Amino acid sequence: MFDPVEKLKEFIRHPSVSADSKFGEGMRGAQKFVADLLGSMGFDVEVVPTELHPIILASRGSDPSWPHVVIYGHYDVQPADPLNLWTTPAFEPSIRGNRIYGRGSADNKGPLITNIAAVARLLEANPNLPLRITFLIEGEEEMGSPSFPKFLERYKDRLKAADFVYLSDTALPNEQQVVLTCGLRGLTLFDVHITGAKGDLHSGLHGGVLRNPIQALAEIIATLHTPEGKVNVPGFYDDVLDVHPWERDELKKLGGDEKAYADFLGIDTFYTTPGFSPFESSRFQPTLEFNGIGGGYQGEGTKTVIPSKAFAKISCRLVPNQQPDKIKKSVMDAIRARTPKGVKLEFVDQHKGEAYVVVPPGRSNTPKDQSPVLARAFLAADKAIAEIWGRPPIYLREGGSVPIIADIKRVTGLDSVMFGLFLPEDNLHAPNESFNLDVMKKGIETTERMLGALAAGK
Amino acid sequence: MFDPVEKLKEFIRHPSVSADSKFGEGMRGAQKFVADLLGSMGFDVEVVPTELHPIILASRGSDPSWPHVVIYGHYDVQPADPLNLWTTPAFEPSIRGNRIYGRGSADNKGPLITNIAAVARLLEANPNLPLRITFLIEGEEEMGSPSFPKFLERYKDRLKAADFVYLSDTALPNEQQVVLTCGLRGLTLFDVHITGAKGDLHSGLHGGVLRNPIQALAEIIATLHTPEGKVNVPGFYDDVLDVHPWERDELKKLGGDEKAYADFLGIDTFYTTPGFSPFESSRFQPTLEFNGIGGGYQGEGTKTVIPSKAFAKISCRLVPNQQPDKIKKSVMDAIRARTPKGVKLEFVDQHKGEAYVVVPPGRSNTPKDQSPVLARAFLAADKAIAEIWGRPPIYLREGGSVPIIADIKRVTGLDSVMFGLFLPEDNLHAPNESFNLDVMKKGIETTERMLGALAAGK
Repeated sequence: MFDPVEKLKEFIRHPSVSADSKFGEGMRGAQKFVADLLGSMGFDVEVVPTELHPIILASRGSDPSWPHVVIYGHYDVQPADPLNLWTTPAFEPSIRGNRIYGRGSADNKGPLITNIAAVARLLEANPNLPLRITFLIEGEEEMGSPSFPKFLERYKDRLKAADFVYLSDTALPNEQQVVLTCGLRGLTLFDVHITGAKGDLHSGLHGGVLRNPIQALAEIIATLHTPEGKVNVPGFYDDVLDVHPWERDELKKLGGDEKAYADFLGIDTFYTTPGFSPFESSRFQPTLEFNGIGGGYQGEGTKTVIPSKAFAKISCRLVPNQQPDKIKKSVMDAIRARTPKGVKLEFVDQHKGEAYVVVPPGRSNTPKDQSPVLARAFLAADKAIAEIWGRPPIYLREGGSVPIIADIKRVTGLDSVMFGLFLPEDNLHAPNESFNLDVMKKGIETTERMLGALAAGK
Repeated sequence: MFDPVEKLKEFIRHPSVSADSKFGEGMRGAQKFVADLLGSMGFDVEVVPTELHPIILASRGSDPSWPHVVIYGHYDVQPADPLNLWTTPAFEPSIRGNRIYGRGSADNKGPLITNIAAVARLLEANPNLPLRITFLIEGEEEMGSPSFPKFLERYKDRLKAADFVYLSDTALPNEQQVVLTCGLRGLTLFDVHITGAKGDLHSGLHGGVLRNPIQALAEIIATLHTPEGKVNVPGFYDDVLDVHPWERDELKKLGGDEKAYADFLGIDTFYTTPGFSPFESSRFQPTLEFNGIGGGYQGEGTKTVIPSKAFAKISCRLVPNQQPDKIKKSVMDAIRARTPKGVKLEFVDQHKGEAYVVVPPGRSNTPKDQSPVLARAFLAADKAIAEIWGRPPIYLREGGSVPIIADIKRVTGLDSVMFGLFLPEDNLHAPNESFNLDVMKKGIETTERMLGALAAGK
């Protein structure tokens, strides 16, 4: 049995930044590392080429009567910039206290090694484990998984033969409390471009004559929320479903401390959908956010220009039953209707993804036709978590988006059991990313026990 | 007598970008070029050191009974970036048709050489010309003249002995119609910074919980104008004076074509102070403009972040009788009052300058104590322009700002006669800046005749 921490160190040393073509060698290294590791464990490993970064598909077990789990993960990481903010080099793993530092340590190399190590232990103990396992490890997650839909279409029949997906790419609220994430928000993104005069103008000679595109853009943006915090777009909430009481009950178990959350964010006032607490609002309600804005002179000092152009980057997070294209159209229509005279409006479309929800067994809204293997997987996970972490998991939707989870559901019908391992202090996507080695150890035991129970038919 | 076009070429070859310390040699070269040229014409040249770029003060004539003109100009130029948009190199003068191309050809090297050449011709014809002339040529105009106030304080007694200032650093509407600019707008500038959470946040995990600083900034900006085009700040227009009927009459002579102006700007609708045409609005009314805005992710594609910060750069153009500090306070107070809860507001103060107005002789509001030499200078300029350009000048305020003109008035009491030589097509501050050599030729004759008449007591 390999040492999971040593393997994670080796994995981090491959600088696998998918979005930057300078990291081609790191991407190939990380992909080969994963493929070789799974090969050494007796898996049949297939490296599926895509237009960009290959997808690893590795299987063991062929008896169709065995339960079949697809374990998802990704071998790519976010860029490590700004490098000067790292205490130790981003791609040189460093252990300090009970944490391992390095880009990708938490997202997603640590959690992926956790699940691979659990499987390795199970197979070492019982090489004939009656469980079909397919690892599905992609290399474009941090870029929005552009090759994934084509891959899904091509491999959907093989994937449909499985029972459910298992992954560790979501969050833990704290070290004591495991969350089984049972919903993710969808999203739709686009840019708004406003053009005034055909070129930048001298603000003295021409000031007072035309509408400044920064002003026009601000006037549009200012209409998109009510003072109370609702998105002010006709139809925006039409397809939002009521929250089931059991979901609110689960959230109560989290025992969120609003004061501590406000301090963590550094704000003195929340601004949520009216009627929803901050913890509810980010999980149960859609949003319209501005991710960026730009126009004119942004340097030091002054430049007395009336800029020709200004733009904003808009993203909406969506809840289950909202359609990304429909919401995008509603928002674009509202913006179009509210664009003042004297400026031109253009949109640049960006990506999108559907929301996802899975209901654990035994709830008021659990589907009657829920896969029995999925139900058993939830119960096995619940039991393993209660035993190892000393407290049963809570079942919560999360505000973030993992669009491929909804894609997998739509194309193959498979639901996902999401066993979160990130902590808020892990600095995902930021300098000094780290992963808690105690969480890793308990994570290995949890996955080992859960998959073992599933194989044993418990 | 030197060849003015050859001298202008030599002047352009000194890359005198005041704002960029890499151009120290070009700045020293341009300063020495001007000082040597004036020295060769018999002027007593003093190079006054400042904290940055020296000011050239060059005088001739000492009889206190002679009229005394201060001719202002500047030897520094704007940066030439983006260099790749220039047809011929920015600092290598090139003549094509009746135009000379090069950075500074129009702003201000061409017009300055025009006035120097006129003086050279006068002195060649009459070395004992009964006119005191002081050239005051600075090297920081394109940076906002930071050293000028200190210089003025130090030299105010010497400057007070003069009768008026003469300069060519304003615009001509077209090649046929000279404008004697008799007013400039003031300005006041500052930046607004809005901070939300203490760091950038994941828009999925935390979206729907707090007010986005881009949204807060847009909501503030959107309150600052009425839909009709007025600045929506209490007290903003309190000190704006009525426009005298003669000023509107002068503007009518310009015969501005609104359709042609809209086409030049590339817009389909004007947005002016209500009750003012576009030509009136930019000259007679104050503005509040947004020169820049920034926040969050501005690159290609998407980054689903709720930014911690957003900012905007604001400038107000002011008309005579408005005080920059008072207006700045009114606008800041309005912004403070309109900043929503949940975000923090900070201002960064930038520079400011007062508006300026000079009334030519014989108007309803000409000051009763107007300097007789100033009145004679206006009449001499009017006559020379009518003779040489075939049409008398019109007397207009301009929307731009030359803060040192108001500073000179405030400290020394001197008014300015502003004989514009730039054409709209000269591309000031832009690539392929050029200067019209026919305008230069007529400009030399005009200044020669005007100063000659003043010296002759006509």
